[in-house]
Amino acid sequence: MAKRIIVIGAGPGGYVAALKAAALGAEVTVVEKEGAGGTCLNWGCIPSKIMKTSADLMEKMAQSETFGIEQVGSVAVNMAGLMERKRSVIATQQKGILALFQRAGVTWIHGSARIAGKGRLAVTDENGETSDLYWDNLIIATGTVPMALSAFPFDGKRVVSSNEVLSLSEVPESIAIVGGGVIGCEFAFILNALGAKVTLIEGMDRVLPIDSVDEACSKLLTREMKKKKITLYTNRTVTGVETADECARVTIGPSPFAENPTAKEKEILTEEVAMVAFCVGRSPNSSDIGLEHTGVTVDDRGWIRVDDGMRTSDPAIYAIGDITGPERIMLAHVASAEGVVAAENIMGQDRTMDYTAVPNAIFTMPEVACTGLTEAQARNQGLDVRTDTVLFRAIGKAQVLGEIAGQASIVSETDTGRVLGVHIAGPHATDLIAEGTLAVNKRLTVTDLAETIHAHPTLAEAMLEVALKASGNALHG
Amino acid sequence: MAKRIIVIGAGPGGYVAALKAAALGAEVTVVEKEGAGGTCLNWGCIPSKIMKTSADLMEKMAQSETFGIEQVGSVAVNMAGLMERKRSVIATQQKGILALFQRAGVTWIHGSARIAGKGRLAVTDENGETSDLYWDNLIIATGTVPMALSAFPFDGKRVVSSNEVLSLSEVPESIAIVGGGVIGCEFAFILNALGAKVTLIEGMDRVLPIDSVDEACSKLLTREMKKKKITLYTNRTVTGVETADECARVTIGPSPFAENPTAKEKEILTEEVAMVAFCVGRSPNSSDIGLEHTGVTVDDRGWIRVDDGMRTSDPAIYAIGDITGPERIMLAHVASAEGVVAAENIMGQDRTMDYTAVPNAIFTMPEVACTGLTEAQARNQGLDVRTDTVLFRAIGKAQVLGEIAGQASIVSETDTGRVLGVHIAGPHATDLIAEGTLAVNKRLTVTDLAETIHAHPTLAEAMLEVALKASGNALHG
Repeated sequence: MAKRIIVIGAGPGGYVAALKAAALGAEVTVVEKEGAGGTCLNWGCIPSKIMKTSADLMEKMAQSETFGIEQVGSVAVNMAGLMERKRSVIATQQKGILALFQRAGVTWIHGSARIAGKGRLAVTDENGETSDLYWDNLIIATGTVPMALSAFPFDGKRVVSSNEVLSLSEVPESIAIVGGGVIGCEFAFILNALGAKVTLIEGMDRVLPIDSVDEACSKLLTREMKKKKITLYTNRTVTGVETADECARVTIGPSPFAENPTAKEKEILTEEVAMVAFCVGRSPNSSDIGLEHTGVTVDDRGWIRVDDGMRTSDPAIYAIGDITGPERIMLAHVASAEGVVAAENIMGQDRTMDYTAVPNAIFTMPEVACTGLTEAQARNQGLDVRTDTVLFRAIGKAQVLGEIAGQASIVSETDTGRVLGVHIAGPHATDLIAEGTLAVNKRLTVTDLAETIHAHPTLAEAMLEVALKASGNALHG
Repeated sequence: MAKRIIVIGAGPGGYVAALKAAALGAEVTVVEKEGAGGTCLNWGCIPSKIMKTSADLMEKMAQSETFGIEQVGSVAVNMAGLMERKRSVIATQQKGILALFQRAGVTWIHGSARIAGKGRLAVTDENGETSDLYWDNLIIATGTVPMALSAFPFDGKRVVSSNEVLSLSEVPESIAIVGGGVIGCEFAFILNALGAKVTLIEGMDRVLPIDSVDEACSKLLTREMKKKKITLYTNRTVTGVETADECARVTIGPSPFAENPTAKEKEILTEEVAMVAFCVGRSPNSSDIGLEHTGVTVDDRGWIRVDDGMRTSDPAIYAIGDITGPERIMLAHVASAEGVVAAENIMGQDRTMDYTAVPNAIFTMPEVACTGLTEAQARNQGLDVRTDTVLFRAIGKAQVLGEIAGQASIVSETDTGRVLGVHIAGPHATDLIAEGTLAVNKRLTVTDLAETIHAHPTLAEAMLEVALKASGNALHG
């Protein structure tokens, strides 16, 4: 008899796990309380990039004269049109996932799930009907929701989460974004390009305060924010929000994370804005799925503990994706890879997740993308490394596009030339990182990259130039 | 005493050779009769991509409503502005090259050069002053000019070459482009997006009739031309051009290259257009540089014959770049790689050019890029191969961008999974090809690509999906 596997959650991790398990012969059911595609498709990667696509076009249109295009008249964002496009793209993708389920023989249940006992799942479907399902193995891929701060409850209007930002009915005149991580930074650039006056508040001393993001990329974004008149406060936090009918008054004070705040950073400021968005993290969907009926261990914040084979402490239960917490990198493509590992392990293989060559793609303007180690991380591991950098302004294609801000860096091992990390801020960074990720993953050297012909005139020549430099063969300075 | 090397021509091959030779300790002089950067910077890659950047923006602006942007009023190309931008970008790049020469101690002479005897070059500089220069080794990098057909001489107004298309003072109302190769196809899409009515005439049975370009990419472009109302005639040639003050009357008849022309293809048509551009090939700049004073062999069309070390039949003379003809792939980045090989060989190393992993980047709309072998080329070599393809419409990011036309294919060896060729037509194809080129060059397999995590949502996921398919692990159909 085929193994019965139930996957809770149909985000990128869950749906890939389901398809993989079905391909390996399991009888698979997916239960998802929202739409297929999870946070990624419905409230994350995809809708934010749909907004960014329009923001990019707005930005280019504002520069059209430079490109020899004369535009007489007015240009305005029609948020209803943008949201209609969002709904349509998401619907197409959802249909695609459901078609794949159907073709693979995966049973799809739109409903909420709760573990009711050993091997038993109580499901309430969209019509309110309840039923029990049985599993030999369970894959938990329930993901996260935006973290709410008890002091500043979301009201969906003046005080909002990322979900509401992705469903705006109009561009707010002004917005304070609390949290300068990936989501906060992406929103800051997007909303600025769409016409909002943006204030970004980050508690640490830099935007994108993530170990895997090179400091130079943070600095570049800070510079670009200044150019674009985004107000950035680092080492600061929001200490109060008063809402009124027409606006919210935000009090900004020193951050508890600031190590040596300057006098200026200690000042208390207030700003009146149309909207405050809290993008301060994500909370795990682990508290009401019945984990008490299992042997699954969660940590004190609610993240499910797993090993590199995606096994929880309950032998029949696996967990993948964002529910395993930030230690395992909360990214859609990591979830997909974990989904494959979980499915293969359940079906008798012995696979482990390798997190050494995970790319990160951040859709700021310009984009930031990185993979492997930063110089700081490499040194912390005791490695002898060098970092080489080339500016996009030295790349012909960047000049041609008029997108010259940014740089590409390679962190390589001094002795061997092995590529340990690649960090790119600039045009098409999120596509260019693929070559770097392949290099890190296949343990290639800077010479391997430098001896590979790169097409002219393309942005990928940035990778060639930095590899030439790193291998001691720079010709372009 | 340092070796004296003279490089004739400062295109990408020439200037890279000069910088490399100087870095290795030679005393280097570059003589160039036009601007630094050669055809690539002045009359090729760069100016055409500057026009394409504006064409892309025009196309996006025409679709702005789809992206939730309301534009009231008119949009028009201001060709004077576009040309001003072209001049400015070129000037920046030229300054950059001259600065590199200065820093490397390379002597730059803006003038024409003619070999006057063994080791002797007669140079006429921009002021008309003549002098003799002496060399131990000569590197010929004189490149090409647009091929003129004696039956249809260029008049610079109604009958033009690619040079005039890159220097238009206004967008022609209509244009017939003769030649559906890379240049002709790029111009067809660019001028169409800028507002011209375009007719493209190609003598072979498909556009981009180049062995290294996969037939599927040609078909895709043909389809896109139709959608964009570009009139395409294949298996046809221009048999007559009558020019008048206001227009040119073009007669289109069957092509001498057509194998089995259909009745329709045999019909004689006439079209009245504002301009006819002949993009039928390039002619070598080898006839008036004094080769008669050397032992250099040229073939019957004037291309200089070299070995894989870029040596001509005259032991002191090397040739690189387009002057070595189509057999050695006429691309800027190939010229640069050849420039490094030539310089290193002159300076005592023993290097050979490897043409197995050369990327080709074609800036049509959408872009086409390829590297390595097509399926047909692989089979001709007796290899047992498979081709797998994924459509961009299946990639989330392509949907997000609204750029879903196109596909990515991998040609791989059936037994080993080795990646032999990658062929992409679609958004950002020319950047995405870098990963494929690295895979071909480092002899990686489809499994290597499939097991490398690709960031979501990026266009590089097309490479992941096709690699998964090629390695028998497709999840997305």
